[in-house]
Amino acid sequence: MILDKQDLEQLEQNYRRTFVNSLAGFRQAVLVGTSSVEGNTNLAIFNSLIHLGANPALFGLISRPDRVQRDTLQNILHTKEYTINYVGAEFYEKAHHTSARYERGVSEFEKAGFHEIYHPSCSAPFVEEAIVKIAMQFEQIIDIPLNETILIIGSVKQVEMDASLVAPDGFVNLSEENVLISQGLDAYFVAKTIGRLPYAKPLQ
Amino acid sequence: MILDKQDLEQLEQNYRRTFVNSLAGFRQAVLVGTSSVEGNTNLAIFNSLIHLGANPALFGLISRPDRVQRDTLQNILHTKEYTINYVGAEFYEKAHHTSARYERGVSEFEKAGFHEIYHPSCSAPFVEEAIVKIAMQFEQIIDIPLNETILIIGSVKQVEMDASLVAPDGFVNLSEENVLISQGLDAYFVAKTIGRLPYAKPLQ
Repeated sequence: MILDKQDLEQLEQNYRRTFVNSLAGFRQAVLVGTSSVEGNTNLAIFNSLIHLGANPALFGLISRPDRVQRDTLQNILHTKEYTINYVGAEFYEKAHHTSARYERGVSEFEKAGFHEIYHPSCSAPFVEEAIVKIAMQFEQIIDIPLNETILIIGSVKQVEMDASLVAPDGFVNLSEENVLISQGLDAYFVAKTIGRLPYAKPLQ
Repeated sequence: MILDKQDLEQLEQNYRRTFVNSLAGFRQAVLVGTSSVEGNTNLAIFNSLIHLGANPALFGLISRPDRVQRDTLQNILHTKEYTINYVGAEFYEKAHHTSARYERGVSEFEKAGFHEIYHPSCSAPFVEEAIVKIAMQFEQIIDIPLNETILIIGSVKQVEMDASLVAPDGFVNLSEENVLISQGLDAYFVAKTIGRLPYAKPLQ
């Protein structure tokens, strides 16, 4: 089956959204926790976590121009802090529910059934149930004028997880804990290990 | 275990790279095929495919400031075309080998053991063995000055895959074909399905 640009443009809108989103493949499902300046908490699922660099440790998130993610974006811009949380596959329905369009002021923590937990280093709430809890410091917004999306860049200011997840070389064994993966807007998975490989060297 | 910013900065360099890269979680492993203006082909594994929008269908790739990915970047900038290819898990060693630092002019297709295939719509080579073959039109480069990485944005100009992979609502069943997933710089996985969920609506 071959679809060209014109075929894609002529697809029915919902079909196209499902097709193109799922075509982009598998990615880490993350719950982004924020708090408004008034102290209202917010939790939203993102599937656009981007590794930008290890030193300094910088992660990006793509924010679309819609209402749900705007709450998260506004809170990040106002407070300069947010959390990134990875949950296990048993929470997939709750994680998905954070994408429901609640009014601003309603906390998705409560509605989805997650618990807030705080650390003195960060004003934003973590997800107590999360296997990996990352505190982020907002660094920069980069506009993507082509389609009005936004790249939110932050630096990692704290990482909390069970020490047993980290291999002697620093590798984080997320698959051992069945950390939730997503594809498209509504499909959830866990990872089944194929293997790790040594640094690739040119063949002679 | 809690690591703060200072702890991260003090980690040994290789340990930190492995830790932060793998901390960013699971993502689609993609092989990016390009051709230089002289006709030399290039194939490089990326784990930074970003869905930016469905209409128009826009995907991003993060390019680091290193030599291997610069070949890909230069070819994209010169020819304005590239391909994105997803392979099955059985090719994980070959896919990883495309990250070896070959001299410019040496084709990673040949060295890694993949075959080039062409379509009249695109000057860049596809991976014949790939389950999903996407032809991309270069649209824009966005600099990320914080750490000198680059966001390469392209629009989808053609998608080729077996029609049986696409569900009636447009969802692409990549997990059925054991499409390769990566984590960090050297770990490979396939996806095990948890489930798909309906559009999330607010609880009353």
